[in-house]
Amino acid sequence: MNHYAVVHCGQLVPIKGPIVNDGAFIVKDGKIDWVGPTDAVPADLPTVDGEGKVVTPGLVDAHTHTVFAANRVEEFEFRSRGATYQEIAENGGGIRSTMEATRQATDLEEQVRAHQLRLVRNGTTTFETKTGYGLSPKLELQHLDLADAGVATVRKTFLGAHALPPEFEGDVNGYISALIQVLPEAKAKGASAVDAFIEPGYFTPDAIRPYLEAARSLGLGIHLHVDQLGPHQGAQFAAEMQATTADHLEFTDESGIRALMRAGVTPVLLPASVYGLGKEKYPDAKAMMKAGMAFCLATDYNPGSSPTSSLPFVMGLACRYMGMSPAQALVACTMIPSAVLGLQEQKGSIEVGFDADFVIWPYKDYREIAYWIGDVLPERVAIAGKFV
Amino acid sequence: MNHYAVVHCGQLVPIKGPIVNDGAFIVKDGKIDWVGPTDAVPADLPTVDGEGKVVTPGLVDAHTHTVFAANRVEEFEFRSRGATYQEIAENGGGIRSTMEATRQATDLEEQVRAHQLRLVRNGTTTFETKTGYGLSPKLELQHLDLADAGVATVRKTFLGAHALPPEFEGDVNGYISALIQVLPEAKAKGASAVDAFIEPGYFTPDAIRPYLEAARSLGLGIHLHVDQLGPHQGAQFAAEMQATTADHLEFTDESGIRALMRAGVTPVLLPASVYGLGKEKYPDAKAMMKAGMAFCLATDYNPGSSPTSSLPFVMGLACRYMGMSPAQALVACTMIPSAVLGLQEQKGSIEVGFDADFVIWPYKDYREIAYWIGDVLPERVAIAGKFV
Repeated sequence: MNHYAVVHCGQLVPIKGPIVNDGAFIVKDGKIDWVGPTDAVPADLPTVDGEGKVVTPGLVDAHTHTVFAANRVEEFEFRSRGATYQEIAENGGGIRSTMEATRQATDLEEQVRAHQLRLVRNGTTTFETKTGYGLSPKLELQHLDLADAGVATVRKTFLGAHALPPEFEGDVNGYISALIQVLPEAKAKGASAVDAFIEPGYFTPDAIRPYLEAARSLGLGIHLHVDQLGPHQGAQFAAEMQATTADHLEFTDESGIRALMRAGVTPVLLPASVYGLGKEKYPDAKAMMKAGMAFCLATDYNPGSSPTSSLPFVMGLACRYMGMSPAQALVACTMIPSAVLGLQEQKGSIEVGFDADFVIWPYKDYREIAYWIGDVLPERVAIAGKFV
Repeated sequence: MNHYAVVHCGQLVPIKGPIVNDGAFIVKDGKIDWVGPTDAVPADLPTVDGEGKVVTPGLVDAHTHTVFAANRVEEFEFRSRGATYQEIAENGGGIRSTMEATRQATDLEEQVRAHQLRLVRNGTTTFETKTGYGLSPKLELQHLDLADAGVATVRKTFLGAHALPPEFEGDVNGYISALIQVLPEAKAKGASAVDAFIEPGYFTPDAIRPYLEAARSLGLGIHLHVDQLGPHQGAQFAAEMQATTADHLEFTDESGIRALMRAGVTPVLLPASVYGLGKEKYPDAKAMMKAGMAFCLATDYNPGSSPTSSLPFVMGLACRYMGMSPAQALVACTMIPSAVLGLQEQKGSIEVGFDADFVIWPYKDYREIAYWIGDVLPERVAIAGKFV
């Protein structure tokens, strides 16, 4: 079926443009061909019945880590009993424990596919995903090959600079140099950006600058993990580097927000990683909204801080703890991230010419996607017009 | 199929007794007939393959409100933009708005059934549920008739004293007297307990005492909503009333905990109602564990503060924000609430003679039930040996 209409959408939420009650749209060859009221749909088209439910575009997740093996339940249990970050690291937890599991996995491809299918089951049809658990130039490149399991639209980011691997202990610059050497190959393997984790104990601005400049000279975009663990002027650094996105920003203050705004860097806020660690300091979305900035909400799906592939859960967090309305949260999971990923003409909106990626939700009101907790899953998901 | 074995449970978590790897159990006539290792199962029995996954007893939820109509997304949106409790009430939100919707619903029976099926889909096979949105003696009794939709094992609680209805504005004692008059009928309709919301602006201890004493003289149990909104000595009152449970307890201090312990009152902690309101003050589970108290975790499923039917979500909250381990959280959602509901010989454990209510989870490790966020749902649920 490559030409059909979805009819009787109780609330058709196209994102750009107003909600259409009893809305409809026509799918032709994987694209949206028409949007309007159900009673204007030509009678001779085959139809899918929206049954009065909410229909949105497929969600877009601008920040995920899906190339990993195993999980971190041991560390989760340990933390639940009050262990500190330091104790967890000493007991073999943290990024390095996932690195070990990922390096040793014999079925990594299958596990990546499972993670990405999980995103799709939660309503996400386009996502950015990062390497970062290989932590050698060779493995990071191999993981780029695995980063697109073919179940959705994927933008691949090279995150060699996620943590310093044990092989380079005490030699940050040596590791950075080794990463720089493989950046052209990373690009050839389809990476559209690089990323780095900028925090004390991980990578400093001065250490990482050459890597980011090399990436930029190759035409790769820049995403940066900044200000997650403390107020470390990470936003200012992202602004200086003219990053596409600055991600996390839990500890970014108003001067950091102004720096991002002036530089045209889009924030990607990851409240589930705050929740996942049992913390309370969420990024200051209210200040960003007050400043008139557009920003993304994303899952940060990863086995350590954010074991969730649910953007609806993230929207619920944003409405409860960050002062966002359900509409603002939905825009931050569709239109804004589609632009960040360079897909603003194809994804994140139900409009003519866009890809027919959409979700039918088991609700009457789109706000229920953020309102209900713990079991918010699509009823049906379509990618390029095909139900998955 | 009324006699079969469930085999190859990767982790069979019976709750009472140790985890059995590659465990099995035999179901006969809706009961557990045997528990042990898979290789000891008689070869001639029909089998269900656990496929190496986690199997637990069906979860038991000691505090839900399922007799309601509609939802409160308007209020949710209003609150997300920073509205206060007072503003929400002035704009027609709060318990009374659900009372209006529930009174007006023409399909209440169907909506109750949907709520209860949702609990079951989340792995809950036994739950307590309350009336409390009719708010007239007559409607509260009618709602008792609807409170068991027949999809799980239900214990019904009469919550006439949830809020003062508009018809009794300014006449708390009149409303309490009217409720007392119908308590014998409530019991005849299958209520096993009464409940009341004890907070300033709702019901005071002095106003509610005659209602609780009347209930006790009829042999009804007592549950109480206390110390949710502030430190109001609610725990001490629950102890004085020899309640079966004291529910919420966000603001209960150590003296309140000691009072509950001395009186043998079991706490029922409802962290999802803290989360649902975007607050940060969770009940002090650590102090209760330190004191050696057993307590329940429950969803508080309701359309205002806690729109979740997911005990796995509640377990995740307890591990992240209340210092509980995944094992402690699971016990607090199985064995302890089964005892609170008087079902300690039938529910909350996979052991010989117990009802064959069990859940097959799509995980290898039981801790994943609390670890993953947002999409933790059973793979299969069985009640009295029948898959639902």
